[in-house]
Amino acid sequence: MKKPTKRLETSHVVVESVEPTVDGGRFPAKAVSGEPVVVSADVFSHGHESVRAHVRWRVCGGRLWRTIAMRPVGNDRFSAPIVAEEPGRVELEVLGEVDRLGNWRHDATRRVEVGLFDPEDPRTASALLAEASHLLAFAELQRESGIVGALAVQAAEAGDLAALAKLLDACTEVEELLRAVPPVAREAVSPRYEVLVSRPVAAFSSWYECFPRSTSTTANRHGTLKDLVGRLDYIGDMGFDVLYLPPMHPIGTTARKGRNNSTVAGPGDVGSPWAIGSPAGGHTAVAPGLGALEDFDHLVSAARARHIEIALDLAFQCSPDHPWVTEHPDWFEHRADGSIACAENPPKRYEDIYPIDFDTPDRDALYATLLGVVEHWIGHGVRIFRVDNPHTKPFVFWEWLLAAVRRDHPDVVFLSEAFTRPKVMHRLAKLGFDQSYTYFTWRDSKRELTEYFEELAHGPGSAYLRPNVWPNTPDILARSLQRGGRPSFVARLVLAAGLSANYGIYGPAFELLLDEPAQPGTDGDYLDSEKFEVRLWNLADPRSIADVVSQVNAARRAHRSLQRNASLQFHSIDNEQLICWSKRDDESGDTVLCVVNLDPRWTQSGFVDLDLAALGLPPKAPFNVEDLLDGASYRWAGSRNFVALDPSRSPAHLFVVEPIPEKSPEVPRERRTRPREPRATVSRRSP
Amino acid sequence: MKKPTKRLETSHVVVESVEPTVDGGRFPAKAVSGEPVVVSADVFSHGHESVRAHVRWRVCGGRLWRTIAMRPVGNDRFSAPIVAEEPGRVELEVLGEVDRLGNWRHDATRRVEVGLFDPEDPRTASALLAEASHLLAFAELQRESGIVGALAVQAAEAGDLAALAKLLDACTEVEELLRAVPPVAREAVSPRYEVLVSRPVAAFSSWYECFPRSTSTTANRHGTLKDLVGRLDYIGDMGFDVLYLPPMHPIGTTARKGRNNSTVAGPGDVGSPWAIGSPAGGHTAVAPGLGALEDFDHLVSAARARHIEIALDLAFQCSPDHPWVTEHPDWFEHRADGSIACAENPPKRYEDIYPIDFDTPDRDALYATLLGVVEHWIGHGVRIFRVDNPHTKPFVFWEWLLAAVRRDHPDVVFLSEAFTRPKVMHRLAKLGFDQSYTYFTWRDSKRELTEYFEELAHGPGSAYLRPNVWPNTPDILARSLQRGGRPSFVARLVLAAGLSANYGIYGPAFELLLDEPAQPGTDGDYLDSEKFEVRLWNLADPRSIADVVSQVNAARRAHRSLQRNASLQFHSIDNEQLICWSKRDDESGDTVLCVVNLDPRWTQSGFVDLDLAALGLPPKAPFNVEDLLDGASYRWAGSRNFVALDPSRSPAHLFVVEPIPEKSPEVPRERRTRPREPRATVSRRSP
Repeated sequence: MKKPTKRLETSHVVVESVEPTVDGGRFPAKAVSGEPVVVSADVFSHGHESVRAHVRWRVCGGRLWRTIAMRPVGNDRFSAPIVAEEPGRVELEVLGEVDRLGNWRHDATRRVEVGLFDPEDPRTASALLAEASHLLAFAELQRESGIVGALAVQAAEAGDLAALAKLLDACTEVEELLRAVPPVAREAVSPRYEVLVSRPVAAFSSWYECFPRSTSTTANRHGTLKDLVGRLDYIGDMGFDVLYLPPMHPIGTTARKGRNNSTVAGPGDVGSPWAIGSPAGGHTAVAPGLGALEDFDHLVSAARARHIEIALDLAFQCSPDHPWVTEHPDWFEHRADGSIACAENPPKRYEDIYPIDFDTPDRDALYATLLGVVEHWIGHGVRIFRVDNPHTKPFVFWEWLLAAVRRDHPDVVFLSEAFTRPKVMHRLAKLGFDQSYTYFTWRDSKRELTEYFEELAHGPGSAYLRPNVWPNTPDILARSLQRGGRPSFVARLVLAAGLSANYGIYGPAFELLLDEPAQPGTDGDYLDSEKFEVRLWNLADPRSIADVVSQVNAARRAHRSLQRNASLQFHSIDNEQLICWSKRDDESGDTVLCVVNLDPRWTQSGFVDLDLAALGLPPKAPFNVEDLLDGASYRWAGSRNFVALDPSRSPAHLFVVEPIPEKSPEVPRERRTRPREPRATVSRRSP
Repeated sequence: MKKPTKRLETSHVVVESVEPTVDGGRFPAKAVSGEPVVVSADVFSHGHESVRAHVRWRVCGGRLWRTIAMRPVGNDRFSAPIVAEEPGRVELEVLGEVDRLGNWRHDATRRVEVGLFDPEDPRTASALLAEASHLLAFAELQRESGIVGALAVQAAEAGDLAALAKLLDACTEVEELLRAVPPVAREAVSPRYEVLVSRPVAAFSSWYECFPRSTSTTANRHGTLKDLVGRLDYIGDMGFDVLYLPPMHPIGTTARKGRNNSTVAGPGDVGSPWAIGSPAGGHTAVAPGLGALEDFDHLVSAARARHIEIALDLAFQCSPDHPWVTEHPDWFEHRADGSIACAENPPKRYEDIYPIDFDTPDRDALYATLLGVVEHWIGHGVRIFRVDNPHTKPFVFWEWLLAAVRRDHPDVVFLSEAFTRPKVMHRLAKLGFDQSYTYFTWRDSKRELTEYFEELAHGPGSAYLRPNVWPNTPDILARSLQRGGRPSFVARLVLAAGLSANYGIYGPAFELLLDEPAQPGTDGDYLDSEKFEVRLWNLADPRSIADVVSQVNAARRAHRSLQRNASLQFHSIDNEQLICWSKRDDESGDTVLCVVNLDPRWTQSGFVDLDLAALGLPPKAPFNVEDLLDGASYRWAGSRNFVALDPSRSPAHLFVVEPIPEKSPEVPRERRTRPREPRATVSRRSP
């Protein structure tokens, strides 16, 4: 006969399926400081024993463990919210234990009901109440346990059903008190899981990207960081809270690119900011043409005064003139002839850029230096980094770097600029990037947009990948912007800003409706791209849609529903050119409903079939929708309502949904408030 | 500046999301011996490097590791089938590595295409081919590598594009050969995962439960195991392959139950077989009234000769007269007065049964003894156990017991009889039970059945929980059987046997249409239940549906599509009383289509809207459906077809679907073959 193994566990309780977790705990889930994370788990025992469950958690490395009772939510599942007030890593475990007092009360109640109370039973009141009073003593709740204990003894000794009934009532109260008492024994404990807690800006941010060297207001003068300070009001007035700068370091001259990506630079050509490094310095220096390090410090504080954060580009690559090329030649890949290989992605070739060899035998020094670059800029007040092409560097590097930075600076936020295959993008997000660029730039049709944002908002990746969506970037003048002028730009703006809590535009090219590609019919570079030359922008151009950008960003600031993605809900609408969705903040009830006409040329109309539950509305009641773009307000009712959008006026509705209180007297059937300008757009109830 | 940690990994490759796995590897996935298990995983590197992936696996404890190349299936996913020929545990891991030769060829091809071939490049042919030839040497494929290596040197030295083109062609061939070569280095390795491989009977089985003591053919005589041998032909002719016996051990006399669960037994009352143990013995003994251990051995071999396996009941509980009660009083829970507590689930009380205290301080001895019970019956030829109420015993016990049994007897199959909450049932399946009872007995309506079987066939539990569905058991005379006579029994039979690859009936109560409950209007015990008395059955009763049972089981044996659940597909049909589904075996193309009328009283008709792809049929072509229950055959076409079922004739179609070969000459429009009896049922094409 075999003997049971020594290590056999004794607990009756199982803890399973803890959420939120990523890949079974291999990676942290994501959360935002000051905001509840609902931890849930299946906790149960065999048979009919009921159980109690607690979450035990602490800030990683901290000494204070907190323990919170979880509430049953049905089907053996328990949940409880935890809130980390500061950014950092949190670790948690779920504890399960048999609810001895609850089981006894349940059992005793049934016995009383069916006349089976048996004072001789080993599960009798006094025995179990002794156990309860042990638990209660632990929680310094002796007063209550004293009452119950006395009743228990009385009931047990007398076999008295009336006394027992009193006891059961008392038990109910004690159980309520017990909920707050942490478990005494660690009967069943889940593995430990981590949550990466970031600042709120990781979840809700409006980015503006611009080239500092193009901020001069005078023709033929290279812009400076001081010029950029002068532009902060313009950017702040549009409502952006993150200003992202392409690399502002010295640019190499060897193999410098000319205008329009020419391989031969003319004498006045400024080169690509991504060709980092010259005798003037590398990744920790400011390009002399832009100013000095003090100018950057001034920019950071001037921006902060306007509630704008500066985000820097981490582009870990070098021009042939970068100091590292001579100081650390072994950090680069060498040809047979001893020269260093340039970056290429055939047929493209980047002669002005040397990729770093992350597999160098001198890896420890390389890694430490790159960490030093990040810490240098952190020292100058930067807390947001946009990482250039992280998917061309090893995963292990990023996992190490992000953890190393966050050890001392848990408030640093990283955006992954990886336009690549889905699994690679997801892996980078799992490794700790706070935000990720997406395929939005290439998703145009209603079906593409619906499928993609369903996946982003509700797919398995939503636990760790926060999308940051861009209608354009310096590398991508999307085809959707090349065909339709202002209506296309406004439509893509409302799609980006309304579908995703994080979004950005590359300006002033965006708000000035720049739409001429370097190669017609492609999604790539702009003609006369700022990547290769200094541009002078006329911000006062009457065609500018900066006012619409302001309205959209103001709506995002005012409406909590637009600041998260989990509530995203698409609504059916019987026209392939019209797309409709809503977002709702359950706590405040704030609800926004958007409709966008994807056709930049023609008025499109149709009936929307609203999912009223997603809007927090009762089945047939009337409600008001007010367009935050033009201030017009309409009275709708029920799920079916008519919408028409003339792109020459406005291709989008950005409605706030306002339920009408049940007893509100005499609301006019159609009410218009503060129309900003006459609009042909018709939005009325279904006939 | 910080130093990178020493343990930093160097691999570029990631292996993620290995399937099949259960709870991230905490439990084994399930498979069947001789049948492929498709192992898949995401394997990728950063950047554009392509990768190779292999599954490495062995029988747990075995010495021979096998390594199989995985094929890319898109989106960075790779898969490969592995086949374990024998029951047991298999462990596996997925290996990923950079595909150096493939990357070089891809890169070189692009360079040749765009005129960028550079013999000075460090990634030149000779360097990479040297690496390839190392891989090839490992695989003793030197001949091929020799060819490629020579070309490589030639191309590299000459910078000759024509030579390089030849080399690239040769590379393609070598890569094909390389697929079979296991990886040299363990660049990236997944965690190890286990698969529990069971005999095919775990996945496909038809169970018949009957009480041996009711197998006498003479009134007032207690049936014996010898009588049961005489009934094997009857059971075998119905097509069952598992004969499950309720406990056949000595029954206690203390507090013995009388007929219809009376608490007072009369002098002739035989008691419940689940009240195990008397002075004649306990769990390893045969009840004297049924015969001797030799009779059991004879039963096992007589059944085996008819391709029937005997399944025994493991009911780990004792009558007050069980030898363990006196030998090991500490294995039971004691009252304050020293007496042992009986089982109860208020208001029910089982005075004839003592539950075992699995938390006894003498646990090691108890566990070893219970394992000894299983091994005793294994020694007598039993390889299938139906476990009574596993959910009232600790999970840790089952995990230990199943593993302990399988260490020496990997061919043993366990069925979990846990009618309890979903999470508990799933946990037991994860712990290693091969099959699980289900809620089928209480699922009557089309919606309930559809939702439930969708979950069973395609839900997350399908990786580890194999349903075994029963229209009735000795404990459950389902309400669905109490209302509709023969049509209800046939409908529930076809539902069970057609929806689930594992099913069973409790007979002869089932085939003799027994439908009188102990308490009218409830789902519980039968009136005059065999659990408490000996019954004499008239198997020749003309109302018996044993012939239909035979037809259904014959269909299950003949059609591989009915022997697994993964292909289950419901088809829409515009009548709430008609339910339609199909199953298909992709390898053989065998396809079965079932339609059941859930209304036992009235003819129901409607149009079925078939998912033709699930049936392996082209969009609009005609096809034949032949009813395996009555032999009638109809010509259908396209997705929309008419069905009518008169329950007084047959409440179900069990069609085999036969595509008509494209060039088959002159198939008659409506063809009837071998009709067994005239039927009013109309099945014709949609007009």
